[in-house]
Amino acid sequence: MSQLTYGIAAFPSKKIQDIANSYRMRYDPSYSKIPPHITLKESFTADQQTIDRLSKDLSKIAKETEPFDIEIKKVSSFSPITHTIYLKIEPNDTLSKLNEQMNAEGFPGEQAFKFVPHITISQDLSEDEHSDVYGTLKISSFDLKDTIDRFQLLYQLDDGSWTVYETYKLGE
Amino acid sequence: MSQLTYGIAAFPSKKIQDIANSYRMRYDPSYSKIPPHITLKESFTADQQTIDRLSKDLSKIAKETEPFDIEIKKVSSFSPITHTIYLKIEPNDTLSKLNEQMNAEGFPGEQAFKFVPHITISQDLSEDEHSDVYGTLKISSFDLKDTIDRFQLLYQLDDGSWTVYETYKLGE
Repeated sequence: MSQLTYGIAAFPSKKIQDIANSYRMRYDPSYSKIPPHITLKESFTADQQTIDRLSKDLSKIAKETEPFDIEIKKVSSFSPITHTIYLKIEPNDTLSKLNEQMNAEGFPGEQAFKFVPHITISQDLSEDEHSDVYGTLKISSFDLKDTIDRFQLLYQLDDGSWTVYETYKLGE
Repeated sequence: MSQLTYGIAAFPSKKIQDIANSYRMRYDPSYSKIPPHITLKESFTADQQTIDRLSKDLSKIAKETEPFDIEIKKVSSFSPITHTIYLKIEPNDTLSKLNEQMNAEGFPGEQAFKFVPHITISQDLSEDEHSDVYGTLKISSFDLKDTIDRFQLLYQLDDGSWTVYETYKLGE
């Protein structure tokens, strides 16, 4: 059975996506592959049968999770591990729990790093470019609040872009 | 209450999206704004209250519609109205009915042209470019089949790209 590459993400409000895109269009070569998002589960491969099963599990997880608030106050970087700069989501128990549930037994894929909720705004820059951009952005402060009431399962096309497969609404 | 721009579309299988993208990346400047899709309802503006109401109507429409097959055999063009070249979806009663239901009384927005189900693969070329590309593509024949089992409500960001707001599964 043929396998596709899937990922799970939450899209913040249009306002936050527009702010993230104002940076991404300059500093992220993958900008056009997917709208600004919070990754809940890193990409994994699965066949249709597995996805049908996962989809039921994801509906259950969504139903048991109430919509929740997130807050963004500043920019941070994963340097020196990668040159990724991101809008940092303030520590959030619900996001962490969702990430844990989506990596529990029965879910395919593995998480390479500790879960740090974030919205990427810059990646794949050279070391010098990264230093320049991060030097400018890390002194910005933000006061962004949003309510997350859904997440989405997406699959990747051959050109690297992502299409939404299904939406899971929280608390319903 | 602030208004966003929304649209309703169905994404065909990854296979058909990959084929469409192989043309779009060369012939469609808007290629990266949204994955390849069949537009079911042209873009319209609405506030959150209207969307909450529409979403219930769309769930009902989806529930009453069984998954259905589509077929693609050839490329066509909207010339001379626009220079849009597309994968033509063979006449399909279910697609036409969905389009009608989404433009019935109570739904915002208006449809400028008769509904012609299609997947755009080229647009916004000059008249000469359009003639060249269409001359090459119109002699291609395809034998693509797919089953549509869901459609999606999307909203547009400031940069023109689209984010999925919700997925409606047919027959459920």
